[in-house]
Amino acid sequence: MNPVLRIRLDLAYDGTAFAGWARQPALRTVEGLLEEALCIVLRTDVSPRVTVAGRTDAGVHARGQVAHLDVDEVAWAALSNQSTRSPGESLVARLGGLLPPDIVLHSAVPAPPGFDARFGALRRRYAYRIADAPARRDPLVRSHVLWHPRGLDVAAMRTAARDLVGHHDFEAFCKPRPGATTIRTLEIFDWERPTTGPDAGLVVATVQADAFCHHMVRALVGASLAVGEHRRPVQWPGNLLAERFRDPAVGVVPACGLTLEHVEYPDATALAARAEATRAHRSPLPTR
Amino acid sequence: MNPVLRIRLDLAYDGTAFAGWARQPALRTVEGLLEEALCIVLRTDVSPRVTVAGRTDAGVHARGQVAHLDVDEVAWAALSNQSTRSPGESLVARLGGLLPPDIVLHSAVPAPPGFDARFGALRRRYAYRIADAPARRDPLVRSHVLWHPRGLDVAAMRTAARDLVGHHDFEAFCKPRPGATTIRTLEIFDWERPTTGPDAGLVVATVQADAFCHHMVRALVGASLAVGEHRRPVQWPGNLLAERFRDPAVGVVPACGLTLEHVEYPDATALAARAEATRAHRSPLPTR
Repeated sequence: MNPVLRIRLDLAYDGTAFAGWARQPALRTVEGLLEEALCIVLRTDVSPRVTVAGRTDAGVHARGQVAHLDVDEVAWAALSNQSTRSPGESLVARLGGLLPPDIVLHSAVPAPPGFDARFGALRRRYAYRIADAPARRDPLVRSHVLWHPRGLDVAAMRTAARDLVGHHDFEAFCKPRPGATTIRTLEIFDWERPTTGPDAGLVVATVQADAFCHHMVRALVGASLAVGEHRRPVQWPGNLLAERFRDPAVGVVPACGLTLEHVEYPDATALAARAEATRAHRSPLPTR
Repeated sequence: MNPVLRIRLDLAYDGTAFAGWARQPALRTVEGLLEEALCIVLRTDVSPRVTVAGRTDAGVHARGQVAHLDVDEVAWAALSNQSTRSPGESLVARLGGLLPPDIVLHSAVPAPPGFDARFGALRRRYAYRIADAPARRDPLVRSHVLWHPRGLDVAAMRTAARDLVGHHDFEAFCKPRPGATTIRTLEIFDWERPTTGPDAGLVVATVQADAFCHHMVRALVGASLAVGEHRRPVQWPGNLLAERFRDPAVGVVPACGLTLEHVEYPDATALAARAEATRAHRSPLPTR
Protein backbone atom coordinates (compact mmCIF):
# COMPACT_ATOMS: atom_id res chain seq x y z
CA MET A 1 0.00 0.00 0.00
CA ASN A 2 1.29 3.44 -0.96
CA PRO A 3 0.69 6.41 1.33
CA VAL A 4 -2.60 8.19 0.76
CA LEU A 5 -3.19 11.85 -0.08
CA ARG A 6 -6.42 13.68 0.81
CA ILE A 7 -7.69 15.79 -2.09
CA ARG A 8 -10.14 18.68 -1.77
CA LEU A 9 -12.63 18.91 -4.64
CA ASP A 10 -14.59 22.10 -5.37
CA LEU A 11 -17.50 21.54 -7.68
CA ALA A 12 -20.81 22.85 -9.04
CA TYR A 13 -23.85 21.18 -10.53
CA ASP A 14 -27.26 21.88 -11.96
CA GLY A 15 -29.42 19.59 -9.80
CA THR A 16 -32.37 19.54 -12.24
CA ALA A 17 -31.65 16.14 -13.76
CA PHE A 18 -30.18 14.49 -10.64
CA ALA A 19 -31.87 12.37 -7.99
CA GLY A 20 -29.72 14.34 -5.52
CA TRP A 21 -26.13 14.02 -4.39
CA ALA A 22 -26.18 10.61 -2.73
CA ARG A 23 -25.55 7.54 -4.84
CA GLN A 24 -28.65 5.37 -5.31
CA PRO A 25 -28.97 2.21 -7.36
CA ALA A 26 -30.21 2.82 -10.92
CA LEU A 27 -30.66 6.58 -10.36
CA ARG A 28 -28.66 9.45 -11.85
CA THR A 29 -26.87 11.04 -8.89
CA VAL A 30 -23.98 13.51 -8.63
CA GLU A 31 -21.99 11.21 -6.35
CA GLY A 32 -22.56 8.26 -8.66
CA LEU A 33 -21.38 10.05 -11.82
CA LEU A 34 -18.45 11.73 -10.05
CA GLU A 35 -17.17 8.48 -8.53
CA GLU A 36 -17.54 6.67 -11.85
CA ALA A 37 -15.51 9.34 -13.64
CA LEU A 38 -12.87 9.35 -10.86
CA CYS A 39 -12.61 5.57 -11.14
CA ILE A 40 -11.75 5.88 -14.84
CA VAL A 41 -9.25 8.73 -14.45
CA LEU A 42 -7.49 7.30 -11.38
CA ARG A 43 -7.49 3.78 -12.87
CA THR A 44 -8.42 2.18 -9.58
CA ASP A 45 -10.16 -1.16 -9.22
CA VAL A 46 -12.06 -0.10 -6.13
CA SER A 47 -14.48 2.76 -6.78
CA PRO A 48 -13.12 5.91 -5.08
CA ARG A 49 -15.33 7.17 -2.23
CA VAL A 50 -16.08 10.86 -2.05
CA THR A 51 -17.16 12.60 1.18
CA VAL A 52 -19.26 15.73 0.67
CA ALA A 53 -20.04 18.86 2.70
CA GLY A 54 -23.73 19.12 1.78
CA ARG A 55 -25.68 16.06 0.65
CA THR A 56 -28.19 17.94 -1.49
CA ASP A 57 -31.64 16.51 -2.23
CA ALA A 58 -33.05 15.72 -5.67
CA GLY A 59 -33.29 18.88 -7.77
CA VAL A 60 -31.16 21.06 -5.46
CA HIS A 61 -28.23 22.84 -7.15
CA ALA A 62 -24.72 23.63 -5.93
CA ARG A 63 -22.27 26.33 -6.95
CA GLY A 64 -19.87 25.98 -4.02
CA GLN A 65 -20.01 22.29 -3.12
CA VAL A 66 -16.91 20.84 -1.43
CA ALA A 67 -15.90 17.20 -1.14
CA HIS A 68 -12.82 15.18 -0.31
CA LEU A 69 -11.29 12.04 -1.65
CA ASP A 70 -8.35 9.92 -0.48
CA VAL A 71 -6.00 8.98 -3.32
CA ASP A 72 -2.97 6.75 -3.54
CA GLU A 73 0.02 9.14 -3.75
CA VAL A 74 1.52 7.29 -6.71
CA ALA A 75 -1.77 7.41 -8.66
CA TRP A 76 -2.01 11.15 -7.89
CA ALA A 77 1.52 11.90 -9.13
CA ALA A 78 0.86 9.81 -12.25
CA LEU A 79 -1.95 12.18 -13.24
CA SER A 80 0.58 14.76 -14.46
CA ASN A 81 2.72 12.26 -16.39
CA GLN A 82 3.79 13.62 -19.77
CA SER A 83 2.13 16.95 -19.04
CA THR A 84 3.11 20.37 -17.80
CA ARG A 85 -0.06 20.40 -15.73
CA SER A 86 -0.13 19.71 -12.00
CA PRO A 87 -1.95 16.51 -10.99
CA GLY A 88 -4.92 18.62 -9.85
CA GLU A 89 -5.16 20.57 -13.12
CA SER A 90 -4.86 17.31 -14.99
CA LEU A 91 -7.69 15.76 -12.95
CA VAL A 92 -9.91 18.81 -13.61
CA ALA A 93 -9.22 18.64 -17.36
CA ARG A 94 -9.80 14.89 -17.64
CA LEU A 95 -12.99 14.93 -15.57
CA GLY A 96 -14.17 17.83 -17.74
CA GLY A 97 -14.03 15.46 -20.68
CA LEU A 98 -15.90 12.67 -18.88
CA LEU A 99 -18.58 14.44 -16.84
CA PRO A 100 -21.84 15.64 -18.41
CA PRO A 101 -22.23 19.44 -18.68
CA ASP A 102 -24.46 19.61 -15.59
CA ILE A 103 -21.49 18.79 -13.28
CA VAL A 104 -18.28 20.84 -13.28
CA LEU A 105 -15.22 20.13 -11.17
CA HIS A 106 -13.68 23.56 -10.50
CA SER A 107 -10.53 22.47 -8.72
CA ALA A 108 -8.74 19.53 -7.12
CA VAL A 109 -5.88 20.24 -4.71
CA PRO A 110 -4.14 18.36 -1.90
CA ALA A 111 -6.00 19.30 1.29
CA PRO A 112 -4.29 20.68 4.41
CA PRO A 113 -3.70 18.12 7.19
CA GLY A 114 -6.88 17.30 9.09
CA PHE A 115 -9.21 18.52 6.33
CA ASP A 116 -12.59 16.79 6.28
CA ALA A 117 -15.17 18.15 3.82
CA ARG A 118 -18.10 17.06 5.96
CA PHE A 119 -17.03 17.26 9.58
CA GLY A 120 -14.61 20.14 9.09
CA ALA A 121 -17.16 22.57 7.65
CA LEU A 122 -17.92 25.56 9.88
CA ARG A 123 -21.03 26.64 8.04
CA ARG A 124 -23.09 26.13 4.89
CA ARG A 125 -24.76 28.95 2.95
CA TYR A 126 -27.73 28.42 0.64
CA ALA A 127 -29.66 30.80 -1.60
CA TYR A 128 -33.31 30.42 -2.58
CA ARG A 129 -34.35 32.43 -5.66
CA ILE A 130 -37.88 33.40 -6.67
CA ALA A 131 -39.29 35.34 -9.64
CA ASP A 132 -42.62 36.67 -8.41
CA ALA A 133 -43.90 38.42 -11.58
CA PRO A 134 -43.96 37.40 -15.25
CA ALA A 135 -41.75 40.36 -16.19
CA ARG A 136 -39.04 39.00 -13.86
CA ARG A 137 -39.00 35.50 -15.34
CA ASP A 138 -35.77 34.96 -17.25
CA PRO A 139 -35.92 31.73 -19.25
CA LEU A 140 -32.09 31.67 -19.33
CA VAL A 141 -31.83 31.11 -15.58
CA ARG A 142 -35.06 29.17 -15.08
CA SER A 143 -33.16 26.05 -13.91
CA HIS A 144 -32.44 27.61 -10.51
CA VAL A 145 -35.21 30.18 -9.96
CA LEU A 146 -38.71 29.32 -8.72
CA TRP A 147 -41.46 31.00 -10.76
CA HIS A 148 -44.06 32.06 -8.25
CA PRO A 149 -47.48 33.14 -9.53
CA ARG A 150 -48.11 35.92 -6.98
CA GLY A 151 -46.18 39.03 -5.90
CA LEU A 152 -44.37 38.78 -2.55
CA ASP A 153 -44.09 41.24 0.34
CA VAL A 154 -40.33 41.03 0.90
CA ALA A 155 -40.34 43.40 3.89
CA ALA A 156 -42.79 41.12 5.74
CA MET A 157 -40.73 38.02 4.88
CA ARG A 158 -37.61 39.73 6.14
CA THR A 159 -39.18 40.66 9.46
CA ALA A 160 -40.54 37.15 9.96
CA ALA A 161 -37.17 35.58 9.10
CA ARG A 162 -35.40 37.64 11.76
CA ASP A 163 -37.30 35.80 14.53
CA LEU A 164 -35.78 32.48 13.45
CA VAL A 165 -32.11 33.46 13.53
CA GLY A 166 -30.09 32.01 16.41
CA HIS A 167 -29.46 28.76 18.26
CA HIS A 168 -32.82 26.96 18.37
CA ASP A 169 -34.55 23.64 18.12
CA PHE A 170 -35.84 23.73 14.52
CA GLU A 171 -38.19 20.77 14.97
CA ALA A 172 -41.05 22.83 13.47
CA PHE A 173 -39.14 23.07 10.18
CA CYS A 174 -37.50 19.64 9.96
CA LYS A 175 -38.45 16.27 8.64
CA PRO A 176 -37.75 14.27 11.80
CA ARG A 177 -35.21 11.44 11.96
CA PRO A 178 -35.32 9.09 14.94
CA GLY A 179 -32.59 9.80 17.46
CA ALA A 180 -31.27 12.88 15.66
CA THR A 181 -31.23 16.32 17.20
CA THR A 182 -32.95 19.20 15.40
CA ILE A 183 -30.96 21.87 17.24
CA ARG A 184 -29.03 24.13 14.89
CA THR A 185 -27.52 27.60 14.82
CA LEU A 186 -29.19 29.62 12.08
CA GLU A 187 -26.63 32.36 11.53
CA ILE A 188 -28.27 34.20 8.63
CA PHE A 189 -31.83 34.10 7.34
CA ASP A 190 -32.52 37.15 5.23
CA TRP A 191 -34.79 38.05 2.32
CA GLU A 192 -34.08 40.78 -0.20
CA ARG A 193 -34.94 41.99 -3.68
CA PRO A 194 -31.54 42.97 -5.12
CA THR A 195 -31.53 45.86 -7.59
CA THR A 196 -28.13 45.01 -9.09
CA GLY A 197 -25.96 41.94 -9.60
CA PRO A 198 -26.86 38.50 -10.89
CA ASP A 199 -30.18 38.35 -9.00
CA ALA A 200 -31.52 41.83 -9.82
CA GLY A 201 -35.32 41.87 -9.57
CA LEU A 202 -35.61 38.44 -7.98
CA VAL A 203 -36.65 37.70 -4.40
CA VAL A 204 -33.67 35.97 -2.77
CA ALA A 205 -33.19 34.28 0.59
CA THR A 206 -29.73 33.88 2.11
CA VAL A 207 -29.76 31.05 4.64
CA GLN A 208 -26.64 30.14 6.58
CA ALA A 209 -26.19 27.71 9.46
CA ASP A 210 -23.58 25.45 11.01
CA ALA A 211 -25.56 22.62 9.42
CA PHE A 212 -29.12 21.96 8.32
CA CYS A 213 -31.67 19.24 9.11
CA HIS A 214 -33.44 17.46 6.30
CA HIS A 215 -35.77 19.79 4.30
CA MET A 216 -35.04 22.62 6.75
CA VAL A 217 -34.18 25.35 4.20
CA ARG A 218 -37.16 24.51 2.02
CA ALA A 219 -39.52 24.57 5.03
CA LEU A 220 -38.11 27.93 6.18
CA VAL A 221 -38.77 29.26 2.68
CA GLY A 222 -42.24 27.69 2.65
CA ALA A 223 -43.15 29.50 5.89
CA SER A 224 -41.77 32.74 4.43
CA LEU A 225 -43.98 32.42 1.34
CA ALA A 226 -47.10 32.19 3.53
CA VAL A 227 -46.05 35.48 5.16
CA GLY A 228 -45.01 37.08 1.85
CA GLU A 229 -48.45 36.34 0.38
CA HIS A 230 -50.19 37.62 3.54
CA ARG A 231 -51.75 34.21 4.16
CA ARG A 232 -50.15 34.19 7.61
CA PRO A 233 -49.05 36.99 9.98
CA VAL A 234 -45.44 38.05 10.32
CA GLN A 235 -45.21 36.42 13.78
CA TRP A 236 -46.33 33.00 12.54
CA PRO A 237 -42.92 31.41 11.73
CA GLY A 238 -41.48 32.59 15.05
CA ASN A 239 -44.46 31.17 16.92
CA LEU A 240 -44.11 27.80 15.21
CA LEU A 241 -40.44 27.74 16.18
CA ALA A 242 -41.24 28.52 19.82
CA GLU A 243 -44.02 25.94 19.98
CA ARG A 244 -41.97 23.37 18.00
CA PHE A 245 -45.16 22.74 16.04
CA ARG A 246 -44.88 21.07 12.64
CA ASP A 247 -47.81 22.89 11.05
CA PRO A 248 -48.91 21.25 7.79
CA ALA A 249 -49.45 24.81 6.49
CA VAL A 250 -45.64 25.10 6.26
CA GLY A 251 -45.12 23.91 2.71
CA VAL A 252 -41.80 22.47 1.61
CA VAL A 253 -41.08 24.55 -1.49
CA PRO A 254 -39.79 23.01 -4.75
CA ALA A 255 -36.10 22.11 -4.87
CA CYS A 256 -35.47 24.03 -8.11
CA GLY A 257 -35.00 27.43 -6.38
CA LEU A 258 -32.41 26.14 -3.91
CA THR A 259 -28.64 26.39 -4.45
CA LEU A 260 -25.81 25.52 -2.07
CA GLU A 261 -23.62 28.59 -2.56
CA HIS A 262 -20.73 28.22 -0.15
CA VAL A 263 -19.17 26.01 2.51
CA GLU A 264 -16.73 27.60 4.92
CA TYR A 265 -13.80 25.89 6.64
CA PRO A 266 -11.46 27.10 9.37
CA ASP A 267 -7.91 27.94 8.38
CA ALA A 268 -5.51 25.03 8.15
CA THR A 269 -4.22 25.04 11.74
CA ALA A 270 -7.69 24.84 13.27
CA LEU A 271 -8.91 22.17 10.85
CA ALA A 272 -7.98 18.97 12.57
CA ALA A 273 -9.42 20.11 15.89
CA ARG A 274 -12.67 21.17 14.24
CA ALA A 275 -13.25 17.84 12.47
CA GLU A 276 -12.65 15.94 15.73
CA ALA A 277 -15.02 18.13 17.72
CA THR A 278 -17.86 17.96 15.16
CA ARG A 279 -17.59 14.23 14.72
CA ALA A 280 -17.86 13.66 18.49
CA HIS A 281 -20.72 16.13 18.85
CA ARG A 282 -23.01 15.34 15.93
CA SER A 283 -22.46 11.71 14.92
CA PRO A 284 -24.45 9.77 13.77
CA LEU A 285 -26.39 12.72 12.34
CA PRO A 286 -26.38 13.03 8.58
CA THR A 287 -25.11 16.48 7.71
CA ARG A 288 -26.95 18.32 4.96
CA MET B 1 -64.18 44.51 -39.71
CA ASN B 2 -63.41 46.10 -36.37
CA PRO B 3 -60.60 48.63 -36.05
CA VAL B 4 -57.22 47.13 -35.36
CA LEU B 5 -54.85 47.84 -32.46
CA ARG B 6 -51.08 47.41 -32.71
CA ILE B 7 -49.67 45.64 -29.65
CA ARG B 8 -46.01 45.72 -28.58
CA LEU B 9 -44.75 42.42 -27.15
CA ASP B 10 -41.60 42.21 -25.02
CA LEU B 11 -40.32 38.68 -24.64
CA ALA B 12 -37.40 36.44 -23.73
CA TYR B 13 -36.44 32.91 -24.68
CA ASP B 14 -33.80 30.26 -24.18
CA GLY B 15 -32.87 29.46 -27.78
CA THR B 16 -31.30 26.08 -26.99
CA ALA B 17 -34.24 23.95 -28.06
CA PHE B 18 -35.48 26.19 -30.90
CA ALA B 19 -34.70 26.09 -34.61
CA GLY B 20 -34.53 29.88 -34.36
CA TRP B 21 -37.18 32.59 -34.35
CA ALA B 22 -38.66 32.18 -37.84
CA ARG B 23 -41.51 29.73 -38.32
CA GLN B 24 -40.51 26.64 -40.34
CA PRO B 25 -42.67 23.65 -41.16
CA ALA B 26 -42.31 20.78 -38.66
CA LEU B 27 -39.64 22.57 -36.62
CA ARG B 28 -39.90 24.00 -33.11
CA THR B 29 -39.55 27.77 -33.54
CA VAL B 30 -40.26 30.72 -31.25
CA GLU B 31 -42.51 32.40 -33.80
CA GLY B 32 -44.41 29.17 -34.38
CA LEU B 33 -45.14 28.50 -30.70
CA LEU B 34 -45.92 32.15 -29.97
CA GLU B 35 -48.38 32.48 -32.86
CA GLU B 36 -50.05 29.19 -31.93
CA ALA B 37 -50.55 30.35 -28.34
CA LEU B 38 -51.81 33.77 -29.50
CA CYS B 39 -54.28 32.05 -31.80
CA ILE B 40 -55.76 30.16 -28.84
CA VAL B 41 -55.93 33.15 -26.49
CA LEU B 42 -57.27 35.62 -29.06
CA ARG B 43 -59.73 33.03 -30.44
CA THR B 44 -59.05 34.04 -34.02
CA ASP B 45 -59.57 31.81 -37.02
CA VAL B 46 -56.64 33.27 -38.92
CA SER B 47 -53.32 32.69 -37.20
CA PRO B 48 -52.06 36.05 -35.84
CA ARG B 49 -48.87 37.26 -37.52
CA VAL B 50 -46.09 38.59 -35.34
CA THR B 51 -43.35 40.95 -36.64
CA VAL B 52 -40.09 40.78 -34.75
CA ALA B 53 -37.10 43.12 -34.20
CA GLY B 54 -34.38 40.46 -34.40
CA ARG B 55 -34.95 37.20 -36.26
CA THR B 56 -32.51 35.12 -34.21
CA ASP B 57 -30.90 31.98 -35.64
CA ALA B 58 -31.19 28.47 -34.24
CA GLY B 59 -29.77 28.30 -30.72
CA VAL B 60 -29.52 32.08 -30.21
CA HIS B 61 -31.18 33.43 -27.06
CA ALA B 62 -33.09 36.62 -26.37
CA ARG B 63 -33.67 38.57 -23.17
CA GLY B 64 -34.92 41.79 -24.74
CA GLN B 65 -36.72 40.70 -27.91
CA VAL B 66 -39.48 42.99 -29.18
CA ALA B 67 -42.29 42.15 -31.58
CA HIS B 68 -45.59 43.60 -32.68
CA LEU B 69 -48.97 42.17 -33.49
CA ASP B 70 -52.13 43.71 -34.91
CA VAL B 71 -55.24 42.72 -32.98
CA ASP B 72 -58.94 43.33 -33.52
CA GLU B 73 -59.92 45.99 -30.94
CA VAL B 74 -62.91 44.02 -29.77
CA ALA B 75 -60.87 40.84 -29.27
CA TRP B 76 -58.31 42.90 -27.31
CA ALA B 77 -60.91 44.44 -24.99
CA ALA B 78 -62.46 40.99 -24.49
CA LEU B 79 -59.22 39.73 -22.95
CA SER B 80 -59.97 41.52 -19.70
CA ASN B 81 -63.59 40.35 -19.51
CA GLN B 82 -64.56 39.28 -15.99
CA SER B 83 -61.17 40.30 -14.68
CA THR B 84 -59.57 43.24 -12.90
CA ARG B 85 -56.55 42.82 -15.16
CA SER B 86 -55.90 45.00 -18.18
CA PRO B 87 -56.07 43.21 -21.55
CA GLY B 88 -52.25 43.20 -21.68
CA GLU B 89 -51.84 41.70 -18.21
CA SER B 90 -54.45 39.15 -19.08
CA LEU B 91 -52.64 38.21 -22.29
CA VAL B 92 -49.34 37.83 -20.38
CA ALA B 93 -50.99 35.60 -17.77
CA ARG B 94 -52.80 33.41 -20.28
CA LEU B 95 -49.77 32.98 -22.54
CA GLY B 96 -47.76 32.11 -19.42
CA GLY B 97 -50.06 29.14 -18.98
CA LEU B 98 -49.75 28.03 -22.62
CA LEU B 99 -46.11 28.65 -23.53
CA PRO B 100 -43.34 26.23 -22.56
CA PRO B 101 -40.90 27.51 -19.89
CA ASP B 102 -38.26 28.41 -22.47
CA ILE B 103 -40.38 31.33 -23.79
CA VAL B 104 -41.66 34.11 -21.52
CA LEU B 105 -43.84 37.01 -22.59
CA HIS B 106 -42.85 39.88 -20.29
CA SER B 107 -45.40 42.44 -21.38
CA ALA B 108 -48.05 43.26 -23.97
CA VAL B 109 -49.18 46.87 -24.34
CA PRO B 110 -50.85 48.97 -27.06
CA ALA B 111 -48.01 50.49 -29.08
CA PRO B 112 -47.66 54.22 -29.80
CA PRO B 113 -48.85 55.31 -33.27
CA GLY B 114 -46.37 54.39 -35.98
CA PHE B 115 -44.61 51.72 -33.93
CA ASP B 116 -43.05 48.95 -35.99
CA ALA B 117 -40.95 46.37 -34.10
CA ARG B 118 -38.75 45.65 -37.11
CA PHE B 119 -38.48 48.85 -39.13
CA GLY B 120 -38.79 51.21 -36.17
CA ALA B 121 -35.82 49.81 -34.24
CA LEU B 122 -32.89 52.23 -33.93
CA ARG B 123 -30.36 49.64 -32.77
CA ARG B 124 -29.95 46.08 -31.54
CA ARG B 125 -27.54 45.06 -28.78
CA TYR B 126 -26.21 41.52 -28.40
CA ALA B 127 -23.94 39.92 -25.78
CA TYR B 128 -21.65 36.96 -26.37
CA ARG B 129 -20.51 35.16 -23.21
CA ILE B 130 -17.53 32.84 -22.83
CA ALA B 131 -16.12 30.87 -19.87
CA ASP B 132 -12.44 30.36 -20.70
CA ALA B 133 -11.33 28.26 -17.71
CA PRO B 134 -12.89 25.25 -15.93
CA ALA B 135 -13.13 27.20 -12.67
CA ARG B 136 -15.34 29.77 -14.44
CA ARG B 137 -17.82 27.23 -15.80
CA ASP B 138 -21.12 27.55 -13.99
CA PRO B 139 -23.43 24.67 -14.89
CA LEU B 140 -26.42 26.80 -13.83
CA VAL B 141 -25.92 29.26 -16.68
CA ARG B 142 -24.43 26.87 -19.23
CA SER B 143 -27.38 27.37 -21.62
CA HIS B 144 -26.09 30.79 -22.67
CA VAL B 145 -22.33 30.71 -22.05
CA LEU B 146 -19.81 29.14 -24.43
CA TRP B 147 -17.29 26.90 -22.65
CA HIS B 148 -13.98 27.58 -24.35
CA PRO B 149 -11.09 25.21 -23.69
CA ARG B 150 -8.30 27.84 -23.71
CA GLY B 151 -7.67 31.07 -21.78
CA LEU B 152 -8.30 34.29 -23.73
CA ASP B 153 -6.29 37.53 -23.92
CA VAL B 154 -9.14 39.98 -23.43
CA ALA B 155 -6.94 43.08 -23.84
CA ALA B 156 -5.89 41.93 -27.33
CA MET B 157 -9.51 41.14 -28.29
CA ARG B 158 -10.56 44.57 -27.12
CA THR B 159 -7.91 46.33 -29.17
CA ALA B 160 -8.78 44.33 -32.28
CA ALA B 161 -12.49 45.01 -31.84
CA ARG B 162 -11.93 48.76 -31.74
CA ASP B 163 -10.80 48.72 -35.40
CA LEU B 164 -14.19 47.41 -36.52
CA VAL B 165 -16.40 50.03 -34.90
CA GLY B 166 -18.00 52.51 -37.29
CA HIS B 167 -19.90 52.69 -40.57
CA HIS B 168 -18.33 50.03 -42.80
CA ASP B 169 -19.00 47.37 -45.37
CA PHE B 170 -18.95 44.21 -43.23
CA GLU B 171 -18.73 41.83 -46.18
CA ALA B 172 -15.74 40.06 -44.56
CA PHE B 173 -17.97 39.04 -41.65
CA CYS B 174 -21.29 38.31 -43.37
CA LYS B 175 -22.88 35.36 -45.04
CA PRO B 176 -23.74 37.03 -48.35
CA ARG B 177 -27.28 37.35 -49.70
CA PRO B 178 -27.76 38.27 -53.34
CA GLY B 179 -28.74 41.88 -53.82
CA ALA B 180 -28.44 42.80 -50.14
CA THR B 181 -26.05 45.40 -48.82
CA THR B 182 -23.56 44.46 -46.10
CA ILE B 183 -23.02 48.06 -45.00
CA ARG B 184 -23.84 48.57 -41.34
CA THR B 185 -22.98 50.94 -38.50
CA LEU B 186 -21.27 49.01 -35.72
CA GLU B 187 -21.79 51.33 -32.77
CA ILE B 188 -20.25 49.23 -30.00
CA PHE B 189 -17.95 46.24 -30.17
CA ASP B 190 -16.20 45.75 -26.86
CA TRP B 191 -14.75 42.85 -24.88
CA GLU B 192 -14.40 42.75 -21.12
CA ARG B 193 -13.98 40.41 -18.18
CA PRO B 194 -16.41 41.84 -15.61
CA THR B 195 -15.41 41.46 -11.96
CA THR B 196 -18.92 41.99 -10.59
CA GLY B 197 -22.49 41.54 -11.74
CA PRO B 198 -24.16 38.62 -13.45
CA ASP B 199 -21.19 37.92 -15.74
CA ALA B 200 -18.36 38.13 -13.18
CA GLY B 201 -15.35 36.12 -14.37
CA LEU B 202 -16.69 35.52 -17.87
CA VAL B 203 -15.34 37.03 -21.09
CA VAL B 204 -18.19 39.10 -22.55
CA ALA B 205 -18.62 40.93 -25.86
CA THR B 206 -21.09 43.78 -26.21
CA VAL B 207 -22.04 44.23 -29.87
CA GLN B 208 -24.43 46.97 -30.95
CA ALA B 209 -25.39 48.11 -34.44
CA ASP B 210 -28.27 49.67 -36.31
CA ALA B 211 -28.85 46.18 -37.70
CA PHE B 212 -26.81 43.05 -38.38
CA CYS B 213 -26.22 40.92 -41.45
CA HIS B 214 -26.64 37.17 -41.27
CA HIS B 215 -24.04 35.50 -38.98
CA MET B 216 -22.30 38.86 -38.49
CA VAL B 217 -22.06 38.84 -34.68
CA ARG B 218 -20.86 35.25 -34.58
CA ALA B 219 -18.20 35.96 -37.24
CA LEU B 220 -17.02 39.06 -35.34
CA VAL B 221 -16.70 36.88 -32.22
CA GLY B 222 -14.93 34.15 -34.22
CA ALA B 223 -12.31 36.63 -35.46
CA SER B 224 -11.90 37.88 -31.87
CA LEU B 225 -11.21 34.35 -30.59
CA ALA B 226 -8.36 33.93 -33.10
CA VAL B 227 -6.82 37.12 -31.67
CA GLY B 228 -7.58 36.17 -28.04
CA GLU B 229 -5.77 32.84 -28.50
CA HIS B 230 -2.84 34.57 -30.27
CA ARG B 231 -3.47 32.56 -33.43
CA ARG B 232 -3.76 35.85 -35.35
CA PRO B 233 -2.33 39.34 -34.75
CA VAL B 234 -4.40 42.13 -33.27
CA GLN B 235 -4.58 43.91 -36.66
CA TRP B 236 -6.04 40.89 -38.45
CA PRO B 237 -9.80 41.60 -38.04
CA GLY B 238 -9.32 45.24 -39.08
CA ASN B 239 -7.34 44.16 -42.15
CA LEU B 240 -10.03 41.69 -43.20
CA LEU B 241 -12.62 44.44 -42.88
CA ALA B 242 -10.57 46.84 -45.02
CA GLU B 243 -9.91 44.17 -47.66
CA ARG B 244 -13.51 42.87 -47.54
CA PHE B 245 -11.94 39.40 -47.51
CA ARG B 246 -14.07 36.50 -46.27
CA ASP B 247 -11.18 34.52 -44.74
CA PRO B 248 -12.18 30.93 -43.94
CA ALA B 249 -10.05 31.31 -40.80
CA VAL B 250 -12.86 33.49 -39.39
CA GLY B 251 -14.91 30.84 -37.65
CA VAL B 252 -18.59 31.37 -36.97
CA VAL B 253 -18.78 30.61 -33.23
CA PRO B 254 -21.55 28.43 -31.73
CA ALA B 255 -24.94 30.08 -31.24
CA CYS B 256 -25.20 29.09 -27.56
CA GLY B 257 -23.12 32.05 -26.27
CA LEU B 258 -25.18 34.68 -28.13
CA THR B 259 -28.06 36.59 -26.57
CA LEU B 260 -30.10 39.48 -28.00
CA GLU B 261 -30.12 41.78 -24.97
CA HIS B 262 -31.91 44.94 -26.06
CA VAL B 263 -33.67 46.67 -28.94
CA GLU B 264 -33.96 50.44 -28.83
CA TYR B 265 -36.74 52.55 -30.36
CA PRO B 266 -37.08 56.31 -30.76
CA ASP B 267 -39.59 58.05 -28.53
CA ALA B 268 -43.19 57.99 -29.71
CA THR B 269 -43.21 61.20 -31.80
CA ALA B 270 -40.22 60.14 -33.91
CA LEU B 271 -41.51 56.60 -34.41
CA ALA B 272 -43.62 56.90 -37.51
CA ALA B 273 -40.94 58.85 -39.37
CA ARG B 274 -38.28 56.31 -38.45
CA ALA B 275 -40.25 53.30 -39.66
CA GLU B 276 -40.92 55.02 -42.98
CA ALA B 277 -37.28 55.97 -43.49
CA THR B 278 -35.91 52.51 -42.66
CA ARG B 279 -38.39 50.71 -44.84
CA ALA B 280 -37.50 52.88 -47.84
CA HIS B 281 -33.76 52.55 -47.20
CA ARG B 282 -33.27 48.89 -46.40
CA SER B 283 -36.06 46.91 -48.04
CA PRO B 284 -35.99 44.11 -49.10
CA LEU B 285 -33.18 43.35 -46.67
CA PRO B 286 -34.01 40.93 -43.91
CA THR B 287 -33.23 42.62 -40.61
CA ARG B 288 -31.45 40.48 -38.05
